[in-house]
Amino acid sequence: MNIAESAKAAKSTSIQLAAVVTEAKNIALAEIAKALKRRSAEIVSVNEKDLAAAEKSNLAAPLLKRLKFDEGKIADVCAGIDSLIKLDDPVGKTLSATELDDGLELYKVSCPIGVIGVVFESRPDALVQISTLCLKSGNAVLLKGGSEAAETNRILAKVIAGASQKAGLPEGWIQLLETREDVAEMLALDEYIDLIIPRGSNEFVRYIMDNTNIPVLGHAEGICHVYVEAGADVDMAVRIAVDSKCQYVAVCNAAETLLVDEKIAKDFLPKVKTALEAKNVELRGCEKTRAIIDAKPAGEKDWSAEYLDLILSVKVVTGLDEAIGHINRFGSGHTDTIVTADKGKAGKFMDLVDSANVFWNASTRFSDGFRYGLGAEVGISTNKVHARGPVGLEGLVIYKYKLLGTGQIVADYSGPNAKKFTHKRIVSGE
Amino acid sequence: MNIAESAKAAKSTSIQLAAVVTEAKNIALAEIAKALKRRSAEIVSVNEKDLAAAEKSNLAAPLLKRLKFDEGKIADVCAGIDSLIKLDDPVGKTLSATELDDGLELYKVSCPIGVIGVVFESRPDALVQISTLCLKSGNAVLLKGGSEAAETNRILAKVIAGASQKAGLPEGWIQLLETREDVAEMLALDEYIDLIIPRGSNEFVRYIMDNTNIPVLGHAEGICHVYVEAGADVDMAVRIAVDSKCQYVAVCNAAETLLVDEKIAKDFLPKVKTALEAKNVELRGCEKTRAIIDAKPAGEKDWSAEYLDLILSVKVVTGLDEAIGHINRFGSGHTDTIVTADKGKAGKFMDLVDSANVFWNASTRFSDGFRYGLGAEVGISTNKVHARGPVGLEGLVIYKYKLLGTGQIVADYSGPNAKKFTHKRIVSGE
Repeated sequence: MNIAESAKAAKSTSIQLAAVVTEAKNIALAEIAKALKRRSAEIVSVNEKDLAAAEKSNLAAPLLKRLKFDEGKIADVCAGIDSLIKLDDPVGKTLSATELDDGLELYKVSCPIGVIGVVFESRPDALVQISTLCLKSGNAVLLKGGSEAAETNRILAKVIAGASQKAGLPEGWIQLLETREDVAEMLALDEYIDLIIPRGSNEFVRYIMDNTNIPVLGHAEGICHVYVEAGADVDMAVRIAVDSKCQYVAVCNAAETLLVDEKIAKDFLPKVKTALEAKNVELRGCEKTRAIIDAKPAGEKDWSAEYLDLILSVKVVTGLDEAIGHINRFGSGHTDTIVTADKGKAGKFMDLVDSANVFWNASTRFSDGFRYGLGAEVGISTNKVHARGPVGLEGLVIYKYKLLGTGQIVADYSGPNAKKFTHKRIVSGE
Repeated sequence: MNIAESAKAAKSTSIQLAAVVTEAKNIALAEIAKALKRRSAEIVSVNEKDLAAAEKSNLAAPLLKRLKFDEGKIADVCAGIDSLIKLDDPVGKTLSATELDDGLELYKVSCPIGVIGVVFESRPDALVQISTLCLKSGNAVLLKGGSEAAETNRILAKVIAGASQKAGLPEGWIQLLETREDVAEMLALDEYIDLIIPRGSNEFVRYIMDNTNIPVLGHAEGICHVYVEAGADVDMAVRIAVDSKCQYVAVCNAAETLLVDEKIAKDFLPKVKTALEAKNVELRGCEKTRAIIDAKPAGEKDWSAEYLDLILSVKVVTGLDEAIGHINRFGSGHTDTIVTADKGKAGKFMDLVDSANVFWNASTRFSDGFRYGLGAEVGISTNKVHARGPVGLEGLVIYKYKLLGTGQIVADYSGPNAKKFTHKRIVSGE
């Protein structure tokens, strides 16, 4: 099958999948977990071939680590599937119900989006997580993983497709793309694909956004801020700054800029410098910062830099308003945190910072689907429509309006003798 | 101000507007209604100038009627504002609340989208409806109306801006664009504009969709179907078909294709033909149709035609599955209705037809924000993400995650001695 045929098949299956009941989806998920365990030796040996090829081509050690898919990883993804089975089905929920008139009832009911294209990085566990999230939410999925993991992804997709089909689900809901050219082709298929979720580098996500008419859910950059307000507990602020920057530097929710209120700067900056330098973080400061501590000078470019590295830009601000203004101007709408004992200021910060995740006295690193209790996530969105922040099952559904009548026509509700609508909220489902 | 400056001003105001409390927004809405009434003589006289110019340039009579904005229309939009004041504020609702750990609480809270660009047709009442919907939902708005209504729109925008500012709202939340070039410029401003809602012709909406990276909410075509199933009450089916086609032909929720089960075709088709021809509707039928009634032949193009005119294509189908397949292939995902006494078949139709609005025994003409009880609508969406069907206040908000901590860092929740998340649902807001 070429990509257009795969997408068409996925579209056709997605219609059937939308009507599959919760129990059947959960049985299929359980079958998938069983099959992954049963065939784990085979999967691991295929993965070892991918690993050997990657080592030969000198793939960097951290990437090799992400590519590895051993018995432990298989157990992890199966545990993830077990949690997913326990989560509520996001499909078929009555979101609102209104009586429009006697015998004319309107229901707003959640339903799957349809066909979702996901492009993800080298981790094969992502394939299992994403495809099972799509299955639980009733969506067909086109998947494109990292090319280093090609063989592992192929067997995983085959096992998942086979197990779900054996459990009675319609064939064709999971389709694997293999090349960059496949992705380019997919971007043109707005007739069949309803949503694209790209994960990967900034440039890659921008490329996707710029080259398709299909809605894209995701984030390009993660320029996250820690703002240490005048009323902050200094020790807490140091811990949060260090964790936000260093707990895992190469990820989108790591902090890139530290904003410090001038009233607390003299006390806070030397302490945070010591703690960050102990973790080998390079500081780049504004002039006011450099009047207090030794740091490289920060240029205008540093305020919009996503370092993804042991570098942190530091700016002293006059207060809350300047901090909010700076974040809304230079941030990427991802995750920003304020450290303060002042509840009013925290509230204002969280109301006025226009980001998907706004925190008070907590590390930016908490913005994550697992930590939020969403089960897993298909990605983190900085979009302003549909879904924002970590996106789990709820971000994979939309709704339709079902109107149940008894022969009503609009002509009776217009003109001089128009019948009136009652517009009563219906309390119990039906 | 040029368009980029207008958009930048709107973005900046939108941040302030997001934090304005419900009461202040409602007071501003009441002030707007008062100001419109107080200045109605002036508004009507300005509108008369637009009307005179339009008559001179031979604008068609139906368009002239839509352009007219007299005392009656002003009373209507003010009544609309009164209803809007009574609707719940969609902003600031806690959508979910989770305790992640002791002293670490996550709230998913609804908030405005930000800046919305709306391009609408010649009716000046649309300007009032759209801008007040945006205000109630806390969004700044860039508006571009029909050029025939330029003077009327200008005074309306001025009155609305003035009244809301007098009521204490931040300046600059409503901005008027005046030319087609302004619209083209707006499409490039993804830095400041979060959502575009285009209303108008199929070609115009497609032009917008193809020429911007900003998310677009709306619909290009409305190819709506009436499916008369074998178990239909024939009289009801005739009434619904006639209403769906004729109650207002030039609108997106009017039916364009009639599908008829072969088991009922001989009884139903002659009756519906008589009723439709009494309304001057031209029928274009498939071969099976033309074996039963006299009709022009329908070509392949007719199944994807949005006539917006007194023309209806008619196809005889073998049953429910063919009807669903036909609608999902040729329809536009807008509104489709089944007429049948069979509840099971109606349920299957509503589950498997992949449209925003799926009806049972009711006219397609019901899909409309006012009829649905949403207050008013900014448009009807056939998107598969964010908002679908008639879009009222709820489609104009998104959410942010607020995390309230007491100094937590992620390092404590990872590694061998990791603290566990509690992930308890918090029942009462706070």
